[in-house]
Amino acid sequence: MAEPVEVPPSATQRRLLDAARDAFGAKGFHGTTTRDIAAAAGMSPAAVYVHHRTKESLLFAISLEGHQATLAALRDAGATAADPTAQLAAMIRRFVHGHTTDHTLARVVNYELAALTPEHRAAIDALRHDIQELIRGVVTAGVATGEFDCADVGMTTNAIMGMSIDVARWYDESKAWPPQRIAEHSAQMALRMAGARAE
Amino acid sequence: MAEPVEVPPSATQRRLLDAARDAFGAKGFHGTTTRDIAAAAGMSPAAVYVHHRTKESLLFAISLEGHQATLAALRDAGATAADPTAQLAAMIRRFVHGHTTDHTLARVVNYELAALTPEHRAAIDALRHDIQELIRGVVTAGVATGEFDCADVGMTTNAIMGMSIDVARWYDESKAWPPQRIAEHSAQMALRMAGARAE
Repeated sequence: MAEPVEVPPSATQRRLLDAARDAFGAKGFHGTTTRDIAAAAGMSPAAVYVHHRTKESLLFAISLEGHQATLAALRDAGATAADPTAQLAAMIRRFVHGHTTDHTLARVVNYELAALTPEHRAAIDALRHDIQELIRGVVTAGVATGEFDCADVGMTTNAIMGMSIDVARWYDESKAWPPQRIAEHSAQMALRMAGARAE
Repeated sequence: MAEPVEVPPSATQRRLLDAARDAFGAKGFHGTTTRDIAAAAGMSPAAVYVHHRTKESLLFAISLEGHQATLAALRDAGATAADPTAQLAAMIRRFVHGHTTDHTLARVVNYELAALTPEHRAAIDALRHDIQELIRGVVTAGVATGEFDCADVGMTTNAIMGMSIDVARWYDESKAWPPQRIAEHSAQMALRMAGARAE
């Protein structure tokens, strides 16, 4: 399978993707029609069709962009820190911060995976695998240096990711703690989960 | 608001609720029609209407039963243990085990909350509050006895619940670890998150 090509979206495409993200977030993928999305983007269904032949193609575009951005953000966060303890904290801080500020996007890309075609699902799963491997790599490195005390790196990585992803479900900007605080607390929890000796 | 009355469902009602749960799990609440549910339950739409006037009433019945069962299971798990450390472990073990074996139910009740009417949402939110308070109470008790080292009980409770709920999203019986093992590992993670001195 060819690597998906990253092309920055045009203003029209941006409006369309944002409208689709909000519609999927509000009514779910299966509960949304392309007509709903066109109306929300202020476009005709025919104009939408020029950009995306199917509703699923919109979901894939949103999901691809979201996962690529997350992967880049985590790599970037990891590069700013020198040791596994600081790297894990920096990555989870960034990851959770993104899952609060872009919670609608995060809900759509995490809860509508089953609606993707098998080919698109495989492309997204490859990116999810890379994201998971980044975190798992840092946990493994920390065990190797003796910074972390962690008997099961795979399950612990899953638990850290689970805690972090679920923030998108419960976060509510009207009443929750500010994103910065949730991100910082999640990073501290991740260090505890990995058995960090110095938190 | 009157307390919802718990009435054990009849065989027909059971078949209907299970069909609705599976349909909502597969296509989302908004992507499912009452006709889909009737067909899956082997009933006519008119027969469904006798039990539930609206699709939302089915979602509420599923959600009410699920949350009541979770609350009872957590109370039960907490009662089997003598101190906050053992109680937190027992509760999270039970909670996560339920979120793997009943993962479709758990996804529906956690991801379709926005589809409930305001009255039904308030009833479910009251049960969710009770569930959250049970966990928070145990974390608070552990801080009081000195078993836990936890600076922010509220955020830590949220993080523990988030990790546990998210298991329903990623769990896949075809390839994941067995429920028992995920439940046990999650309980150990919860103790670490709470800063348990003896894990």
